[in-house]
Order: sequence, then C-alpha cells, then structure tokens
Amino acid sequence: MRALEFRDGLLAYLDQTRLPAEEFRVETSDYQEVARAIRRLAIRGAPLIGIAAAYGVALAAKAALAAVPSMFHNEVTRAIDLLLATRPTAINLAWALNRQRTILNKSTRLNEREIAACLASEAISIHREEGEKCERISDFGAELLPNAATVLTHCNTGALATGGRGTALGVISKVWEQMKLKKVYVDETRPLLQGSRLTAWELGNLRIPFELIADSAAAFLMQRGLVNCVIVGADRIAANGDVANKIGTYSLAVLARHHSIPFYVAAPCSTIDLQTESGKAIPIEQRAGEELTEFCGVSLAPKHTQTYTPAFDITPAELVSAIITDAGVCRAPYKETLRTVLFSEIAA
Amino acid sequence: MRALEFRDGLLAYLDQTRLPAEEFRVETSDYQEVARAIRRLAIRGAPLIGIAAAYGVALAAKAALAAVPSMFHNEVTRAIDLLLATRPTAINLAWALNRQRTILNKSTRLNEREIAACLASEAISIHREEGEKCERISDFGAELLPNAATVLTHCNTGALATGGRGTALGVISKVWEQMKLKKVYVDETRPLLQGSRLTAWELGNLRIPFELIADSAAAFLMQRGLVNCVIVGADRIAANGDVANKIGTYSLAVLARHHSIPFYVAAPCSTIDLQTESGKAIPIEQRAGEELTEFCGVSLAPKHTQTYTPAFDITPAELVSAIITDAGVCRAPYKETLRTVLFSEIAA
Repeated sequence: MRALEFRDGLLAYLDQTRLPAEEFRVETSDYQEVARAIRRLAIRGAPLIGIAAAYGVALAAKAALAAVPSMFHNEVTRAIDLLLATRPTAINLAWALNRQRTILNKSTRLNEREIAACLASEAISIHREEGEKCERISDFGAELLPNAATVLTHCNTGALATGGRGTALGVISKVWEQMKLKKVYVDETRPLLQGSRLTAWELGNLRIPFELIADSAAAFLMQRGLVNCVIVGADRIAANGDVANKIGTYSLAVLARHHSIPFYVAAPCSTIDLQTESGKAIPIEQRAGEELTEFCGVSLAPKHTQTYTPAFDITPAELVSAIITDAGVCRAPYKETLRTVLFSEIAA
Repeated sequence: MRALEFRDGLLAYLDQTRLPAEEFRVETSDYQEVARAIRRLAIRGAPLIGIAAAYGVALAAKAALAAVPSMFHNEVTRAIDLLLATRPTAINLAWALNRQRTILNKSTRLNEREIAACLASEAISIHREEGEKCERISDFGAELLPNAATVLTHCNTGALATGGRGTALGVISKVWEQMKLKKVYVDETRPLLQGSRLTAWELGNLRIPFELIADSAAAFLMQRGLVNCVIVGADRIAANGDVANKIGTYSLAVLARHHSIPFYVAAPCSTIDLQTESGKAIPIEQRAGEELTEFCGVSLAPKHTQTYTPAFDITPAELVSAIITDAGVCRAPYKETLRTVLFSEIAA
C-alpha cells in the first residue's frame, strides 16, 4: 500500500514505526490521531507530513461540520494550529497548512459544507502535486548523477517520505531504471534507523542493489573510492541555500567535500523557505533521549545516561554541489537561483 | 571487578557483551575459551586482548604440562597461533604473543614446568606494564588538553579496554581529576555500541559528566562549538603515523580538521607497529552483517539485507595532531618521532 491513502473521508496510513517487521495500516477520521502519528513518526518525511497535515485539516473540517457548525471556523483553525505544532523543522508542514488556512480564511462566500469540500480537495491536490514533483525531481537529478553511479544516501527519502517515488530516492530509482546505477550505500541513520528499516525496505521492494552501512563508515567508503556521489533529501532549505536535514547530513557534506565527491540535495519547492534567511534561523528539533538509549524496550546504555539528541543538522550552502528541485537544478549563488526556481514554479 | 584477573592459574574476565545490563564474570582454565571470548568481543580493546592472549598462552602451557609433556612445545605453539588468529587488526595481540613465543623458543635450558612458570609470569608482567603505561599516557595527555575541556571520544578506551585506567579515557579521567574537564561527549559507536554500553558505564562509575550522542551528530556538535578536542585510542599505528581504530574514527578526524579542532590518539607503545609502513598495509577486519542488522534477536532491517561492515578504519597521519604514548607525545613527522619514542621505551 501507499504511505497515505484518502478515501471516503477517511485517511489510511502505514504505521512506519512498525516497518520492516509488518505493514500495519491505520484508518482514521480524527485529525488528532494524524497529529499523534506525525509526532511519533508513524508518518514521517518532510513532504509526507505536509500532505498528511493537509488531510488532517480536511478530517477536522468534516468533523466540525457534524458537530457544531457555528464553531466550524474556530475548530478548523485549532486543528491547523495543532498540526503545525507537531514538528518544528520541516517547513512542508507550514507550507501545506498555509494553503489550507488560506482556503479557510478566504472562502467567505462559501458555506461550511463547501469550505470542507474545498479543504478535502486541496489536500488531494497537494498530495497529487507532491507526487508529480517527485517525478520532475527524479528526472532532473538523474541527469546530474554520473554513469555507473555508486551513491551514498542517508535517512529515507522514498515513497514512504513523499507523495510519490521520492526525492533523493526518486533520483536513485530513476537512475536505476536508466541502468546508470551501480550500487547504493545506505546509512542506517541512527537513532531511529530510517535507513535500515525504511530505505532498505523500499530498495529491496524495488530490487535495487544496495548495501547497508553504519553511519560512521561513510568516510571509510569515500576514502576507498567506493562512492562517487552523495544525495540526500531536506526538511527545510533557507533562502541562502543552507539545508536542514536528518542528523548526520552535515557530517556527510563535510566528508564529501574532503573527498571531492559531489553532494546533492533533492527536495520539492515546498521545502524551500525564503522567509528563513539562513540555517541559523531554522529550529532544530531535539528528540527524547530514549530514542538513543533504548531499543524495543532493551536498554542500550546505563540507566539515567544523559544524551544530546538533535534530530536534524544544518549543512551550509557552500558544501552543497546542487539542489535538485521539481522546477530545476539550483547551484550557487543559491540566494538567486532558489528565488528564480521558486518564482518560475509559482508562475507555471 | 577488573576486566581481567589471573589467580591460582585461572583467568577471570568480565563478559563485556553483557554490559551494562549485568557484570557477568567468567572463570576459565581453557585457552580456547579465551580465544572465543576475544573473537566474540567478550574481551575487547586492543591493549586488553594482548594481555588476555598472553594469559591464554599461560593457561595453554599449564594444560599441556598436565597432558602429554612431550607435546608441550607443539601445544603451546598451537595455542599462540590460534590466539593470534582471533582478530586481525590490533597489533597488541601479535606484540604480546611474540613476547610469549620468544620465551617459549629461547628457554632451551629450562624444563617444561619452568617454561610454563615463565609464561605465566610474563603474562602478569605484560598486564602490570600495560597498566603502568596507562598512567604515563594519562599524564602526558592531560598536559595537552585545553582548560575547560569539552572532549569528544569514540568507542571504549578505558579500564575495560586496557590493563589500567585506559588510554584516551585514561587521559579524560586524569583531566577530570585535575578539574580541567568540562564535559565528555561519547559517540555511541555503532554497530556494537561500545560507547553507549561501556564508556557510558565507566564514566558513570567515575561520576564524570558526559552526554551520549549518535555517531553522526559529532559534526553538528563541532559546528556549534561544543567540542574543543577529540581523543581516541588505536588498534594499530603504522610506522608513518597512520592510525587504525574503530570504524568512525577517520570520520571524526576529517570533521575535526574541518572545524580546526585538535585530534589526538592515545595508545601504548605496544600499539605501534614499525613493521607496517603505512595504514594501507593494515588488515581491516570485516564483521558479520548481523551486528548491524540485528539487536537482541530483533531485526533492524529487512531479511537478507546486504551490509558492508568494516570494524576499523584508517586515519592518515596528516589528520592526527599528536599521538600520546607512554613514552611521550609524538607529533609529525611521525616516521621519526614514533621510532624515537619506541627506542627510548626499549632503552628504558
């Protein structure tokens, strides 16, 4: 099944915390359940949480209609605010919720039922558009990657993280279809193992050859010449091209630079945040220490071990070889090129 | 208890695979059990496996005496060869076993009982000497570390890995005693979590303030100015100063250089291998993929996931700010300075 499916006013999602052990599907009409699923990473990946939040607003609107119609506007606004507060770093969440908020606030001539229908329709559009963006990102990215590509990637950026085939992983599967891919190296991506659990699962399903590595082995692979490019996704791209992404991304960017290996970021335009001037202004989510010190109820460290667990890091623009968007490939100076692709996308 | 204790002809060791959950002590008179313990990392850490192997030879000699004395020389040689083959990267194993082999082969005027006594005595000497070396390393290293040190370390290099207070961790605990330490950041050290399981356990026992991090978060900490030096141990140091150490070490060295943070290696002279010209000639042990894909019987990745699991990497000498040995601190050009300290140690 797909990561998200919306049908008959219900949202079904794959509980990604249970992968790869089982494909567990949850169906809900409750936006608060969607918020919980985002918070506990049952639904994750910057583009996907934007889509899920948009559907959450549609669910909230439907429920508000059935409850007290006079409270409709308040209830839907409350849902938007709650969904927005689930996670701080990925801008796609704010982007998708802003689209919904605009519909809610500007549809003064429509009645509540009509607004609810528009919110559902907008969520479906966002989902479809985000899927189409993956195709364009994959096409643009495939042109950049070398022949006989040996690609290193981090975290999960495939169908489980997006509305389509993926961003970085979309590029990788496209290159595989074009028979330009030799092998993918997948960082396990501690602490939550999105590489081992999710990317390995997706690549296995696609029958794309890959090897799983410890995050700390990436440098060794580069030193041995086993990797000829690095490609990752993004949770937020600032106006100057600084990239927030899963913890460990910045490390890969420094290592890639040291070994003269290109470092690519693939993301839809919905991940670009021109309001945020640089990476310094991007909030970095801190996750619970238990994500590092426990696994399936077993302690990995002594009790009461203090931890420092940022979920994301910031890669400065100067370490990024190119940012691959659905509206084209940006290179430095990002301050200009990001603005140009964003406006070209809006114009189109 | 200590990591290793030799008493009444029996070797007791702490099964380090069971830490931090329990302090499980195993007592054995069987050198093959010692070899198994080294192979499965119940006994680990470059200096400690040298010491354990030396005791293993003493156990083999005692058993050979009791069995067929005419086969004594053959049996002990067989034990040395078996112990030598347990793990390929750490040179301390070969160093300690060479000391035992020399005693075995040169003691032509002694009878088997006397040789067995010499082998036991030599193992005890190696253990004691390695403990004393930790003290000297710690003193030399403490002089190098900055005031209000915020130190990042990798893997485990303390009492569990050595014959004394440790190498890198010995320096850290010494700096703590001198009230020059602000905080230690400990890499969890995937896949086997020596940082989470062992270093966190040791630092907790010593009441030294530390925070555990995902290996991939090290770059982020450096970027934020949270770390003012990196110190690690070594499994083998080549004649040119290239350092083999736990996978992830090379990554830290590149990151430290990028952030202009000193990168120190602490190791006894028994870790220096002048016979090996450079890191290229150091064999890198590949471990079983399950160390990456399973934890306590739970799958972390889909079945049949391919892995690439080097246990060590090579840090080129040019990234090492200094090598702290028991005979003094070496700086580039290592080809000269390592030779000098090694000969000064032999002379002393």
